[in-house]
Amino acid sequence: MNHSTTEVGSETSEPLRYLSKVEADAIESELLKEYKFGLQQLIEIWGHACAIAITKAYPLSSMGRKQPTVLVVCGPDQNGCIGLVCARHLRMFEYEPTIYYPKRSSNGLHQDFTVQCEKMDIPFLSYLPTEVQLINDAYHLVIDAILGLEADPANVKEPYAGILVTLKQVKIPIASVDVPSGWDVDEASTEGINPEVLISLTAPKKCATSFTGKHFLAGRFLPYDIQKKYDLNLPEYPGTDCLIEL
Amino acid sequence: MNHSTTEVGSETSEPLRYLSKVEADAIESELLKEYKFGLQQLIEIWGHACAIAITKAYPLSSMGRKQPTVLVVCGPDQNGCIGLVCARHLRMFEYEPTIYYPKRSSNGLHQDFTVQCEKMDIPFLSYLPTEVQLINDAYHLVIDAILGLEADPANVKEPYAGILVTLKQVKIPIASVDVPSGWDVDEASTEGINPEVLISLTAPKKCATSFTGKHFLAGRFLPYDIQKKYDLNLPEYPGTDCLIEL
Repeated sequence: MNHSTTEVGSETSEPLRYLSKVEADAIESELLKEYKFGLQQLIEIWGHACAIAITKAYPLSSMGRKQPTVLVVCGPDQNGCIGLVCARHLRMFEYEPTIYYPKRSSNGLHQDFTVQCEKMDIPFLSYLPTEVQLINDAYHLVIDAILGLEADPANVKEPYAGILVTLKQVKIPIASVDVPSGWDVDEASTEGINPEVLISLTAPKKCATSFTGKHFLAGRFLPYDIQKKYDLNLPEYPGTDCLIEL
Repeated sequence: MNHSTTEVGSETSEPLRYLSKVEADAIESELLKEYKFGLQQLIEIWGHACAIAITKAYPLSSMGRKQPTVLVVCGPDQNGCIGLVCARHLRMFEYEPTIYYPKRSSNGLHQDFTVQCEKMDIPFLSYLPTEVQLINDAYHLVIDAILGLEADPANVKEPYAGILVTLKQVKIPIASVDVPSGWDVDEASTEGINPEVLISLTAPKKCATSFTGKHFLAGRFLPYDIQKKYDLNLPEYPGTDCLIEL
């Protein structure tokens, strides 16, 4: 076989690229405009991969006899929408997600993903307890699908600033989607939240360079030509898995 | 745990429901209108599941030293579009799909899925050889994503009638997506093509009741309330798998 995968897969000795915000935006834009991927399609792919990552990092069996509860905190933009899809798939995997989605998007596509969760009977919290112990007691983990690529970490507005203050204090693990909320995409944060798990979408961002937690990469769908153009040097995904632990 | 899954999962003794065309259409319509699923999202989910089914039925390792070639024949409507997505994922799984898509859809969504395949450098055949031996020699298997739910088997038009004549003669295995092309959704066919593998989407159709080949069901995303409303009695999907062999 003489696949182009071998050119970008594990046989290369080049290290995995960590993307700047500018590069990550450029790749997403190219996927949409040149490769004609749709946002509905990408959000479904990414949210599904996030749910699979959670099942690997926190298998149902690890939750003992307690309810496998997960708090999914969703931001106002695309990252939050990926969180909604993640919650829906976690429900199909027999977890018990609860969604906190304080500012619902006016984007019709995001609204459709919201209805899908509501129709799956996934509960939505109307507010986040400020008493951290209540969160620690009620959930096994928090999924941070709050700010993502789009946000400006120097200018986090309410209610997200307050949510981040709360999440910095929780004792249960946090799994962040793509970029830990409050972090700058281009550099690691020492002051922000401290996720135990990071699920990088498409390719990891610069802020993840020194991340020491469990790090998953979910971007198998990425066309080979984009992988080559941006020198991503992605690892070879095992079997038919949609993600890989780095 | 007291999940609604247990009410519809393997603990029930009710047999799996096989859907009529009318019921299958009603479920898809309800998914779109009530549950706000999008066609782009569903086609991606279904096409991905079809590719996974192919990797299970025909693993790369079973293809020996020869190129893992697969001919994906795509019809003009939604079934064909699912075939395009299946081909794209097979390419990511290191198969070598070739697409035959004689009448391209004018639907913008279908066109986008077509571009995604073209941009993955998947070859498109300009015609199907009528010399069956050429097909037998060039490919390991044929994926039949031709007619599906929408078609009227009593009135198969060209070029599909001719394609079915050819596919009835090929010696390599055929894997059909949802409904073997030329079959009536509501009853098994003895005269149509004879697939070795059938991948039922959402729930199996009546025509699959006595299907004796390898039969996969891909419909894990289906909300529990729809499963209950239509008494689907779906089996319990293993782990995080998106499909199950029946």
